[in-house]
Amino acid sequence: MAKIQQLAINTKKEENMSKWYIEVIQKANLIEYTDVSGCMIFKPNSYQIWEKIQNFLNLEIKKMGVSNAYFPMFIPEHLLNKEEEHVEDFTPEVAWVTMAGNNKLNEKLAIRPTSETIMYDAYSKWIHSYRDLPLKLNQWCNIVRWEFKHPTPFMRNREFLWQEGHTAFATKEEADKDVLDALENYRKVYEELLAIPVEKGRKSIGEKFAGAEYTTTIESIAPDGKSIQAATSHHLGQNFSKAFNIKYFDKNQKEKFVFQNSWGLSTRSIAGVILIHSDNRGLVLPPKIAENKIVIIPLFFKGKEKIVLEKSIKIKEKLKEFNPILDDDKKEQSGFKFNKWEIQGVPLRIEIGPKDIEENKLVLVRRDNSKKEILKLNEENLSEKINNILNEIQKNLFDKAKLMMEEKTIEVDNFDDFKVAIKNKKRCLVPWAESIESEKEIKELTGAKSSCIPFKFKNKNLDGVKCFYSGKQATCWAYFAKSY
Amino acid sequence: MAKIQQLAINTKKEENMSKWYIEVIQKANLIEYTDVSGCMIFKPNSYQIWEKIQNFLNLEIKKMGVSNAYFPMFIPEHLLNKEEEHVEDFTPEVAWVTMAGNNKLNEKLAIRPTSETIMYDAYSKWIHSYRDLPLKLNQWCNIVRWEFKHPTPFMRNREFLWQEGHTAFATKEEADKDVLDALENYRKVYEELLAIPVEKGRKSIGEKFAGAEYTTTIESIAPDGKSIQAATSHHLGQNFSKAFNIKYFDKNQKEKFVFQNSWGLSTRSIAGVILIHSDNRGLVLPPKIAENKIVIIPLFFKGKEKIVLEKSIKIKEKLKEFNPILDDDKKEQSGFKFNKWEIQGVPLRIEIGPKDIEENKLVLVRRDNSKKEILKLNEENLSEKINNILNEIQKNLFDKAKLMMEEKTIEVDNFDDFKVAIKNKKRCLVPWAESIESEKEIKELTGAKSSCIPFKFKNKNLDGVKCFYSGKQATCWAYFAKSY
Repeated sequence: MAKIQQLAINTKKEENMSKWYIEVIQKANLIEYTDVSGCMIFKPNSYQIWEKIQNFLNLEIKKMGVSNAYFPMFIPEHLLNKEEEHVEDFTPEVAWVTMAGNNKLNEKLAIRPTSETIMYDAYSKWIHSYRDLPLKLNQWCNIVRWEFKHPTPFMRNREFLWQEGHTAFATKEEADKDVLDALENYRKVYEELLAIPVEKGRKSIGEKFAGAEYTTTIESIAPDGKSIQAATSHHLGQNFSKAFNIKYFDKNQKEKFVFQNSWGLSTRSIAGVILIHSDNRGLVLPPKIAENKIVIIPLFFKGKEKIVLEKSIKIKEKLKEFNPILDDDKKEQSGFKFNKWEIQGVPLRIEIGPKDIEENKLVLVRRDNSKKEILKLNEENLSEKINNILNEIQKNLFDKAKLMMEEKTIEVDNFDDFKVAIKNKKRCLVPWAESIESEKEIKELTGAKSSCIPFKFKNKNLDGVKCFYSGKQATCWAYFAKSY
Repeated sequence: MAKIQQLAINTKKEENMSKWYIEVIQKANLIEYTDVSGCMIFKPNSYQIWEKIQNFLNLEIKKMGVSNAYFPMFIPEHLLNKEEEHVEDFTPEVAWVTMAGNNKLNEKLAIRPTSETIMYDAYSKWIHSYRDLPLKLNQWCNIVRWEFKHPTPFMRNREFLWQEGHTAFATKEEADKDVLDALENYRKVYEELLAIPVEKGRKSIGEKFAGAEYTTTIESIAPDGKSIQAATSHHLGQNFSKAFNIKYFDKNQKEKFVFQNSWGLSTRSIAGVILIHSDNRGLVLPPKIAENKIVIIPLFFKGKEKIVLEKSIKIKEKLKEFNPILDDDKKEQSGFKFNKWEIQGVPLRIEIGPKDIEENKLVLVRRDNSKKEILKLNEENLSEKINNILNEIQKNLFDKAKLMMEEKTIEVDNFDDFKVAIKNKKRCLVPWAESIESEKEIKELTGAKSSCIPFKFKNKNLDGVKCFYSGKQATCWAYFAKSY
């Protein structure tokens, strides 16, 4: 039937990554397109990843003393216009509600492209004294940015989901610390949950959030050498507190403006999981974000159907902490089932045949490297052993991604080598005399821009080192790459 | 300072419930109004209630085999118009996006007033065979209905939060069962979590969801006798499957339309909690939805400040499973603090003075009835005993609400008594010859409409019983009341 999906990825990841990506997200049942361009359905297979991220991050941000809240999605035009730099960033992409029923609204309402303006209007009502500080709120919500670039599911949706933390402090020192605390939480989400290594750094002046004093970021790379901005944490200084009049009386009854931060992580994180871990057989999921850690496939040899099925049901019950799927459909061939669950990224497959039953064996096939692991069914600590295998898969995915990122990165000190490296899909570590102008020029000439100024090279020598582009004295070490 | 809120509820619940309600939600820090009428901020104190409902209900619906997903918020006009009866219900209240940036859109986009149309468009792509059934999805999301009635926070917001479950089945029998399973989950949320007794029933033909074959509901009453529709579960029959062409091949390769349900529970549930449990001293929260079960208030007698504070910190640590607040502000009087935390509904208050320390006593004051409970600090099973007290509070609130509902309900068999009862803010149980026309007339004459046809009176005698309004043979027993 035409309606039944083909169960194979027909594009090679190494040959055409964007086409491969689109095939994987559809065949792994992650998304469905809709009639509204850029707006897609998060099917259960992808939404459950988002729920796992929410659960993980909610615990971490609670430890920071942050409370969850919910602010309206509609932002009246006059509020959105209050902070000029901020507005420049978003106006072209705002979706506007102009009518309710058949009536024209008196004032257009923007659908939040981010919630600084509506939240800070409220903050100005709530903050009066140093005793009201710090104020730390977070919300999980949908966001709309009507970007005109080509939409890519997860990576660039017109409607997407995120969390946005918005914190206000009496002092810049506290705010500076909070920026990094939030960034550290994001590192944990990526490295400990999603098995994606990231690097922390600062965004260049040209690439920071327009409303921010500075933006910090965690960055990853896709196998095609493009950088992925994984999550950002902004110090807003007093830009918004001055625009929105968020003032407090300090202990000496002196009135002061607060210092603010905002930080966010979105469903874009799911794109990273797919691009980095998945392969030519489909989705590969780190076990920690797999809803079902195991799929059990009974091998229905003639005359042995009943005994195989009964044993499979028992094993499913025995392993229920791993939320196993039992695929006992008798109409489908086993080979078809292997493909079906591989493509959806289930970390472990158990095949149960008459021989395994005789020998009391459990044969587990790893999705990440196709290796077989053989356990005894009556083994003591069976679940501990399976957990160890799952942890190994999680670690192996992280290590492979780390190696890939290292191989994709190259240090260059001149523009000629830089151009060749970018053409060869590399990320370049370069000594740079940071400026908005040079970044613009580099981008025009090569398509690459700075992804971040990594913290880990803060103390790397710059004495007498010249900018790879301008030849001036370099002021920092930066990563440059094409980007998503 | 004008900005500091007055810490007392100035309106009596029994005198002016709507005014009292607005005072409570503001002074208990539940909401903040915004510049957009009908759109409000869910502050942490109210949003955490919603999170507790989410956690509770997610477990229950998972047991039903329902998966969470996320569908786009934008519904193109042509999709919304596909199901006529459905459209009648919503068109007047739809918020329309007509522009993105400075560009007019080719087709207006509705912001979901409910997601039947966008979800079922996808269902028609996903369902082909009996093996694709049942399909059971749920989403947690924001909803916009631009109602022109006076907005009331939680009760009637233009933007609110809800979950909507959408299920599709091969047979009507399965669908009928699912309607009631969903309704039973809602009963659990209300009775077991929110301590609000509810009655299950069917909505009258005039009050059902226009797109449904029939609507089931759980109903509660506020202390002013108005009924509160707590949550609804609809059987949609084949209305939508025919409009959206959702067909499957059965085992005999015959093509058939699916049977569908939808069911939802919204942040309106928070309104019920406030209206039913709270009192003239402010919010009262059932312990199961209180973020902090206990507030500890050190009584700073002169010369004893240090020892009292140290002990309070130790007790906070000892009771940390109850997530206690320690209010150790030395500038505020204890009496002020009592009010502050009473108004916010913390279920238990512990006052720690020098005498309690000497006697090794823990004096707990219950928020629900102001009774004191005295425990020994070194008591064995201290946390079990506190848990018992919290369970008693939870039960007491449920029992009080049940009693109130019983007192508010009266059985009448004629229209004169009915009019008096409605005027006296009662809910009436009446024998009724159900019809759309009579319900309209009754509403015009008295302001009351049917809230539900309760299941529990299905077998109550109707032989020779006449309709309270028309005098015709009654066809059902129904509740009539004014409603929120």
